[in-house]
Amino acid sequence: MSLDAVLGRIDDDLDAATERLLDLMRIPSVSTDPAHADDCQAAADWLVADLEKLGARAEKHETPGHPMVVGHLPGNGPHVLFYGHYDVQPVDPLEEWDRDPFDPAVEDTPGGRVIRGRGASDDKGQLMTFVEACRACIAETGALPCAVTFFFEGEEESGSPSLVPFMESHADMLRSDIALICDTTLFQSRTPAIVTMLRGLLGEEMTVTGPDRDLHSGFYGGLAMNPIRVLAKVLAGLHDAQGRVTVPGFYDGIPELPESVRAQWDALDFDSAGFLADAGLGVPAGESDRTPLEMIWSRPTCEINGIHGGYTGAGFKTVLPARASAKISFRLVQGQDPHQLREAFREHVRAQMPPDCSVAFTGHGASSASVMSTDDPAFEAARTALSEEWEDPAAYVGCGGSIPIAGHFKQILGTDAMLIGFGRDDDAIHSPNEKYDLESFHKGTRSWARILHALGR
Amino acid sequence: MSLDAVLGRIDDDLDAATERLLDLMRIPSVSTDPAHADDCQAAADWLVADLEKLGARAEKHETPGHPMVVGHLPGNGPHVLFYGHYDVQPVDPLEEWDRDPFDPAVEDTPGGRVIRGRGASDDKGQLMTFVEACRACIAETGALPCAVTFFFEGEEESGSPSLVPFMESHADMLRSDIALICDTTLFQSRTPAIVTMLRGLLGEEMTVTGPDRDLHSGFYGGLAMNPIRVLAKVLAGLHDAQGRVTVPGFYDGIPELPESVRAQWDALDFDSAGFLADAGLGVPAGESDRTPLEMIWSRPTCEINGIHGGYTGAGFKTVLPARASAKISFRLVQGQDPHQLREAFREHVRAQMPPDCSVAFTGHGASSASVMSTDDPAFEAARTALSEEWEDPAAYVGCGGSIPIAGHFKQILGTDAMLIGFGRDDDAIHSPNEKYDLESFHKGTRSWARILHALGR
Repeated sequence: MSLDAVLGRIDDDLDAATERLLDLMRIPSVSTDPAHADDCQAAADWLVADLEKLGARAEKHETPGHPMVVGHLPGNGPHVLFYGHYDVQPVDPLEEWDRDPFDPAVEDTPGGRVIRGRGASDDKGQLMTFVEACRACIAETGALPCAVTFFFEGEEESGSPSLVPFMESHADMLRSDIALICDTTLFQSRTPAIVTMLRGLLGEEMTVTGPDRDLHSGFYGGLAMNPIRVLAKVLAGLHDAQGRVTVPGFYDGIPELPESVRAQWDALDFDSAGFLADAGLGVPAGESDRTPLEMIWSRPTCEINGIHGGYTGAGFKTVLPARASAKISFRLVQGQDPHQLREAFREHVRAQMPPDCSVAFTGHGASSASVMSTDDPAFEAARTALSEEWEDPAAYVGCGGSIPIAGHFKQILGTDAMLIGFGRDDDAIHSPNEKYDLESFHKGTRSWARILHALGR
Repeated sequence: MSLDAVLGRIDDDLDAATERLLDLMRIPSVSTDPAHADDCQAAADWLVADLEKLGARAEKHETPGHPMVVGHLPGNGPHVLFYGHYDVQPVDPLEEWDRDPFDPAVEDTPGGRVIRGRGASDDKGQLMTFVEACRACIAETGALPCAVTFFFEGEEESGSPSLVPFMESHADMLRSDIALICDTTLFQSRTPAIVTMLRGLLGEEMTVTGPDRDLHSGFYGGLAMNPIRVLAKVLAGLHDAQGRVTVPGFYDGIPELPESVRAQWDALDFDSAGFLADAGLGVPAGESDRTPLEMIWSRPTCEINGIHGGYTGAGFKTVLPARASAKISFRLVQGQDPHQLREAFREHVRAQMPPDCSVAFTGHGASSASVMSTDDPAFEAARTALSEEWEDPAAYVGCGGSIPIAGHFKQILGTDAMLIGFGRDDDAIHSPNEKYDLESFHKGTRSWARILHALGR
């Protein structure tokens, strides 16, 4: 059967595939740093050339930021679009890397062989698993079991400013039967996973102003209202004693988890103690009547991401500051409207201002949660294919993070998205010494070959 | 009479005296910032040279921090010691200054002419009123009516770490019949005042640590305890609904104000509404059962002077930070022991840490309140001399600020201290656009000439 031949070719080609990935990783395509704009161009050019080697029609599309790469390969089955990003995170603090982040290599470690360097996992390594699967299919069978559109962006690590406009203006070019995204992790490092729930994100910045200038706490202390005190009171009141968010209406309209999903999640036997221990923690801090998996996958949260006010340098200054501010984000779930909650939050805070204080807000993004419908048989086909490759059966999982691209496919192109990735929690993406297990790269490539085969049937 | 001649010389010399002050203000002697250590040396050198011009024996004394300046001038009457400080507050936020804080100038404003720049009032301008009074006396009469010891420190704005050890090891050099301190304000901008009550100061810095590294709020948000949330809760709980500080035992041992003092303060007819309005405020924020003058002169307080945690730069970052910290100060009154309260505060905070968080403290100074006895006839002599210079009679007042030096004179040298200053509430000391009214500088200098004359009789 041709799938076995394709898998065999992937095994035989692993060293060469790894060399190709290392070659791409040598290009320091840090999208957030303007000094690396040429490198982003070079990474896009590299991908165009590689897709052309597969026989694809591929093109680099300029944007106001870094370019998009779009390529097409014909196939006999349904039409899939594969999304990945070629840009990488900055590398600072550079001194904490054990090697030059852009001089990648395969290293032996106690946990197995890894590909080490910036972008190994996020997202060059993950992106190349799909490209290598296509390469093996074509080399072995001369064709793909599905028609494939490749869609690579270069601004994912810097807020994707060009993504929505590009998708809107190139909708015809990007339409497909289903979208595949490879930018997520295995569940607990061993179980393949298809993400079917992504939380949305609402970002707010608030500044409380009291006195019209910084005051001396010796003269005014005890008499003038201190905006840090007011801000602290507002922030301290954002959660009640049970860990619930107190913004009025915050939980309205959120559906309870379907029993079937809950049962599946319970069966995953999530090691929440180990997950917390990885961060030096021991006690779940969220809603006291929810399981840890619910807290991070299907329940909304409110986090304070930054706070600043008064004197924060070395030593001490007895200032009574004019203002204090905080950055707050809400992870949102199905049923929550980010724009409505933004207003509810602002009204909730405004109502707490004492007579001498005012508050101003700046919005930082608002995206809804995405929940995929697994009714499309492609989901079950992919889940079966993944289960055949890995030791544990594949699971439908949630993801606490926000991957707005999934929602864009639905809203702009009307396409469902399957998020399937092979990263591990210890890949140190966004941190020094990023790695991608060679097993992730190898079995990830094999997984995509199986999925393409399954979807093409 | 020689006093009139001295006062006439002060009037004639005002421009030159102002130029000398501007020259001293150009030295950016910010004591809390190690980058300005050389500037503190330069300011001390400037003062030594200026005292030598008066004919003083003057010397810079090195300390583990910034140097002390001590100078002596003989005189025919009692021996007075004059204390001031040559160091200044940091200037941030620099963008809120209308001019370079260290390029001072005399400016015309709707309220009259002012000397503008960092240190104009606190304390270079105030310090120089006394030096200029001595200069005029010597120039006009060839001698001073009192023997004078000048004592200038350079660490007042950074907790005076070297002060007590220096006073203890140089007690003989610093002993006098009475100490004079010029670092306070007129009462309500028009009434000269002698401060007889000073609050003490306890400074604390606390850092709450939760996770052992910064986390991604998408992965851990809702599950991991956020140290900003913990810190906000602690800070929000430091005051109760009546504005009282909640640290256990905080108010133990504080005496009620004697009826005689209360009557005198009531007679001052303090314009608390105007005082608050000066800072853009309208409602007293302290203990709800206390008068505004009590709140700032004779009641203890707790203020949050700075707070910092997570991402505070431009834009947004969905970090769940490992730690968050705050700087907190307590103004203390008679009956409160700073060391005992430091322990009570730390215990109070520690008891609120949830299982996954720890808290660390750094102390930033601890000084008790001071209450002067006005039985020494020097107080009444100075009060009469001040009343002759200004329109309103001089008053004995309290001061919300902490000038620990007053207590040190009593405890280490056995000397009473008279705090007489000419600052105004709107001087914006510790804030952008600090100023000193030219009238404060001029009439302040004249006031010291009158006081020296009165004490010398």
